[in-house]
Amino acid sequence: MARVDTIITDARYVITCDDQDVILEHAGIAIDDGHIVAVGDITGFEADNVIDAAGCIVLPGFVNLHTHLPMTLLRGIAENVDLQGFLERVWAEEARIMGPQGTYLGARLGALEALLGGTTTALDMYFHPEAAHRGAVEVGIRHAIGPVFFDFPGPDGLEWSERIELTRSWPSTLTAIGGAYTPRYLMPHSPLIVNPEHLLEINELAREIDARIHTHNSENDKENDDTIAAHGARPTALLRDAGLLDERSTLAHCVRLDEDDRAAIAEGGAFVAHNPGSNLKLASGAMDLVGYREQGIRVGLGTDGCSSSNDLDMFAVLRLAANLARLVRDDPAAISARDIVRAATIEGAAALGMGDRIGSLEVGKEADVVIVDTQAPHLTPLHDPCTALVYAAGRSDVRDVFVAGEQVIADRRPTKVDQREVMQDARAHVENQ
Amino acid sequence: MARVDTIITDARYVITCDDQDVILEHAGIAIDDGHIVAVGDITGFEADNVIDAAGCIVLPGFVNLHTHLPMTLLRGIAENVDLQGFLERVWAEEARIMGPQGTYLGARLGALEALLGGTTTALDMYFHPEAAHRGAVEVGIRHAIGPVFFDFPGPDGLEWSERIELTRSWPSTLTAIGGAYTPRYLMPHSPLIVNPEHLLEINELAREIDARIHTHNSENDKENDDTIAAHGARPTALLRDAGLLDERSTLAHCVRLDEDDRAAIAEGGAFVAHNPGSNLKLASGAMDLVGYREQGIRVGLGTDGCSSSNDLDMFAVLRLAANLARLVRDDPAAISARDIVRAATIEGAAALGMGDRIGSLEVGKEADVVIVDTQAPHLTPLHDPCTALVYAAGRSDVRDVFVAGEQVIADRRPTKVDQREVMQDARAHVENQ
Repeated sequence: MARVDTIITDARYVITCDDQDVILEHAGIAIDDGHIVAVGDITGFEADNVIDAAGCIVLPGFVNLHTHLPMTLLRGIAENVDLQGFLERVWAEEARIMGPQGTYLGARLGALEALLGGTTTALDMYFHPEAAHRGAVEVGIRHAIGPVFFDFPGPDGLEWSERIELTRSWPSTLTAIGGAYTPRYLMPHSPLIVNPEHLLEINELAREIDARIHTHNSENDKENDDTIAAHGARPTALLRDAGLLDERSTLAHCVRLDEDDRAAIAEGGAFVAHNPGSNLKLASGAMDLVGYREQGIRVGLGTDGCSSSNDLDMFAVLRLAANLARLVRDDPAAISARDIVRAATIEGAAALGMGDRIGSLEVGKEADVVIVDTQAPHLTPLHDPCTALVYAAGRSDVRDVFVAGEQVIADRRPTKVDQREVMQDARAHVENQ
Repeated sequence: MARVDTIITDARYVITCDDQDVILEHAGIAIDDGHIVAVGDITGFEADNVIDAAGCIVLPGFVNLHTHLPMTLLRGIAENVDLQGFLERVWAEEARIMGPQGTYLGARLGALEALLGGTTTALDMYFHPEAAHRGAVEVGIRHAIGPVFFDFPGPDGLEWSERIELTRSWPSTLTAIGGAYTPRYLMPHSPLIVNPEHLLEINELAREIDARIHTHNSENDKENDDTIAAHGARPTALLRDAGLLDERSTLAHCVRLDEDDRAAIAEGGAFVAHNPGSNLKLASGAMDLVGYREQGIRVGLGTDGCSSSNDLDMFAVLRLAANLARLVRDDPAAISARDIVRAATIEGAAALGMGDRIGSLEVGKEADVVIVDTQAPHLTPLHDPCTALVYAAGRSDVRDVFVAGEQVIADRRPTKVDQREVMQDARAHVENQ
């Protein structure tokens, strides 16, 4: 018998999300030193930490490919407005409560909500990235973030050149803060408010420090119009001209792309983060998930910040993405539940450049694992595990969560923080500012 | 001090859904003999049964205005098909497992799922209505159902005339089975498979026995086309010609109405049951909720059967209805969260002809009450209760549920049935048939 840190036994289904899309029945997983060492038959392994997954679906943790975790503090403050009205209201509130301490507390709350719902990795975009990272990794989520760039000073008051300077020193700071591995990121807010010269500068800096790129792109028609008015070209064309459409980049939204935009993204290899909940709530439009995929564009799923969507529930996103694709294509077979689960796991991992490290349950990968309890009326009977996950399961069915082999949620409770304290601290900060 | 059966104390918010749409803060509810006797200040009341609602939102129970509860047994068996493909697959399975015993077990499971998610009333359509009713009221839901009519024999083998005969005797049988009050119903399946003469006969019978009407209508384009081919008119026109568009009728779906259809429904006063989850999953289309409302058509919300949608989660329906309305109207202010909550409560009650008995929290009404726990990360902080309910809360936040004053869910568990047994019996029936 080989001794390992943790074994997960007797899962009803293990959805591997590997290249062959294998789904195992009555299978186990062995985890050692943060990595998966066996999937399927684990009779040859023993461990002190044995997790009984009888009656459960085991799957890779979700990758939330576009969010603003600290904005949990602004949940529900900007209702019944479009993107522009939303930004106006949010930016006023941000100036009031989202300093480094608010960012830290909001990220901690957001990471907790995300982990409880089966999200093990978040691609996060927010000011005070060190503070956000500190809050997020404290709860145990895998957290990718980087400085956010605008032409004008952000809510933190930093000028462009100051932010560039800070960024050169920043990756080592991030590493010092810790947490499970994620790559370095630079985050130009959008081609609307980062001008073409600055986009080029971002690209140079990204190459210099080996960083990836995350930006908003073509969220609604007005954003496209404003960008053309300001810079003479559509957002996607501006990104292409700055060399920012290759596979290092993840573009959030991409709701309003024309044919040239699509062709440029497909050719460049950039990933799209699809946020259907936010897109519908702000009436930005319905992204053509299936059309993009057919054209060769790789698409992951995200919640956006929870002041637009208004929570961080990836189960709700999976279901909505599947249903919206049907509506857009007028086709009830537009996309399978399996492909939706892949978009939320291995495709998200690939967008982070981490397709060889996370996103599927395979030997050698880091153990980002979610256990979903199916012993609930709404999952009875259960004919197909992917269909159940996409169309009937919800965040409250998530029982246990592992990130890099560490159990961060055990029986629906966080192991690294006190849930009540995380909520109280966030509430107190909002009320007292 | 007046002594009553139950008091609910210190709710953070009470969403009354009354005519003035009053939302109370730090309020209570007193319940006696199945009815609400006080809302707001309840210091003058005492009871043995005291429910502490500190930190909770209290609201009227949801009315699921179109469902097929017994079809829980068929959850997820017909994926990636349109309405017609769906019916084909489902009807084959129904013949196999949905006799009276399957119907009873499926309704029991469905009622349990519905109650756990805050639905206190279901307008249910299924064969073997006595069996469905027996299962549903056993769990404690308020359950409206009636015989389903087709031109041809249904899965129960009954000819048209036999079903008419049975129906005359049936309402008293239903009353004998018990459960909280609901009106009598007749349920012609749809104008496609109930011919014009039969629709007239239904209308006569309904007037004779004082029954209300529930039917499918214009779910997708093909249904419209097939109806025109079979009977020479659109479904809504056929219902109008049979006198079935007045306020006694609730029409499920109505996704594909033309201007004449809309005008006829608005003029007649029939209610529409909007099922956005099912409509998107089957790619039937996106109903114009806001347009219908502007035209004076009253709209409630439903899940449809959970072999199309695939669960009975009214929270998911609220969120999707709100988001889909934004997409259809290209307007982020298309409909408020308050109006969505009203659609799921008082509008549903009105559709059942029970607007004076349930659907709001007011003195004199029957106590169908739901208590939602907001002590969760995804509901922190909480700026507005309706927004929280529609865009962030979920079925798992429902803590306690009362139907006609009886507590049927206590701390997320049913009080009248054994949850494990209900699930096991359903699973065993599906596997052993």
